[in-house]
Amino acid sequence: MSRAIGVFDSGVGGLTVVKELIHQLPRENIVYFGDTARVPYGIKSQETIVRFSIENILFLLKQEVKLICVACNTVSSIALPVIRNHFKVPLVGVISPGAREAVYATKNKRIGVIGTKATIASKAYESEIKAISPDIKVVSCACPLFVPFVEEGWINERAVFDVAKRYLQPLKVASVDTIILGCTHYPLLKTVIKKVMGGGVTLIDSAKQVATEVKQILNREELLEFNPGPRRDFYVSDGPAWFSGLAKRFLGHSVKKVTKVSLNV
Amino acid sequence: MSRAIGVFDSGVGGLTVVKELIHQLPRENIVYFGDTARVPYGIKSQETIVRFSIENILFLLKQEVKLICVACNTVSSIALPVIRNHFKVPLVGVISPGAREAVYATKNKRIGVIGTKATIASKAYESEIKAISPDIKVVSCACPLFVPFVEEGWINERAVFDVAKRYLQPLKVASVDTIILGCTHYPLLKTVIKKVMGGGVTLIDSAKQVATEVKQILNREELLEFNPGPRRDFYVSDGPAWFSGLAKRFLGHSVKKVTKVSLNV
Repeated sequence: MSRAIGVFDSGVGGLTVVKELIHQLPRENIVYFGDTARVPYGIKSQETIVRFSIENILFLLKQEVKLICVACNTVSSIALPVIRNHFKVPLVGVISPGAREAVYATKNKRIGVIGTKATIASKAYESEIKAISPDIKVVSCACPLFVPFVEEGWINERAVFDVAKRYLQPLKVASVDTIILGCTHYPLLKTVIKKVMGGGVTLIDSAKQVATEVKQILNREELLEFNPGPRRDFYVSDGPAWFSGLAKRFLGHSVKKVTKVSLNV
Repeated sequence: MSRAIGVFDSGVGGLTVVKELIHQLPRENIVYFGDTARVPYGIKSQETIVRFSIENILFLLKQEVKLICVACNTVSSIALPVIRNHFKVPLVGVISPGAREAVYATKNKRIGVIGTKATIASKAYESEIKAISPDIKVVSCACPLFVPFVEEGWINERAVFDVAKRYLQPLKVASVDTIILGCTHYPLLKTVIKKVMGGGVTLIDSAKQVATEVKQILNREELLEFNPGPRRDFYVSDGPAWFSGLAKRFLGHSVKKVTKVSLNV
């Protein structure tokens, strides 16, 4: 049996990564797990995020995946550094690809990073960027209200615009020319963020870079496949109907079959 | 050893109930548990909410509590009807006290109910109100963005005002004169809700009624105590520092010692 690419996220946001994987690797099987019973992770402690992440990885390993894509910025920044070497399967996070792309994109060497409280507190993006180019100025801010707005589907209202104006103020003051959208929900707020920041700013959506990195690894490890009718399996730990409903917004098309599974929770 | 009143909530919101308990029963010991590792419950399924609730109750029973106060509207409306008769300890939810008070308060027999998606979908308040007074018109709406706004501390901004205007529109159209704040976070938005609805509306905050009911039950069961220096123990499943930080907003004073415990999660 051909092995799939595993993808997990705390909820539905990781589907923005699945969308890019399908685009760049259309013949690969994909198994997605969204930990919707315990979403959101972004306000939780490192210890808890690490424990949840390991459980998610073990679930995907049971599905015999050949690579695991950590499609969640919070997990990538908080848990991945701790568990990176625990598993044989390659683990691909979203931080390095996003950081590299931002360093490549900035002209004035000022990069903004936005994400959940946990992601921002970890300084993961900042460390990655500084490791590549120590003279770049990085300004970070947490935007905890962005996720609920996206999940409510209010992505073009005055209220979200007001919220964005307040959150992004330090990035405007610092005149960043590049912003890393450090949460898989944020690409859905591109219009609002562009409007607040002005047209000149480049928004970095890690999903594309992640899919490219996955492709490179599969190629290098000789694990690429060309399934004529590739499988796309979606598992969640709670609320499959809720997940289905939101999926279209992130994936661009609806997901018919979503299976609820019980992890060790 | 004297036994405490147990209180649990999915997170920090239940502290509004603790505040009222302390006010009305200042000599009682109180043990609080906030399931901050799995917060929020309001977007999750009945099966999951029931499972989490049972685990929380079992934790409080280990602390040898004499009564358990379900200080969470989502749990009270979704799980309590299922598990009410499972346990020997009295379980007091927030729905009936709030519904009774609203029926008592309304003059034009039009009551609005606001809460999480799960609470509103359960129609728990509506059923309770109709059971008391079938001719009352009940208009309900879910306000999922209210909790993140309160937790962010933005309770008097244009953005939350815009959001409230949109959410409360059906209640304005229906000319309700009474609104049940069907989520323990909402009392912190009283000013915004009053502003949007106009001064004439009565806002029902279940916390007060719940504390009164607890007092009545303890009195009836001869379980009232008069501890000279009552204990107040706070447990959470994650992020004690985060909980401490938010506690002041809900409780009116800060909480110094918060203990992290691991449930069966």
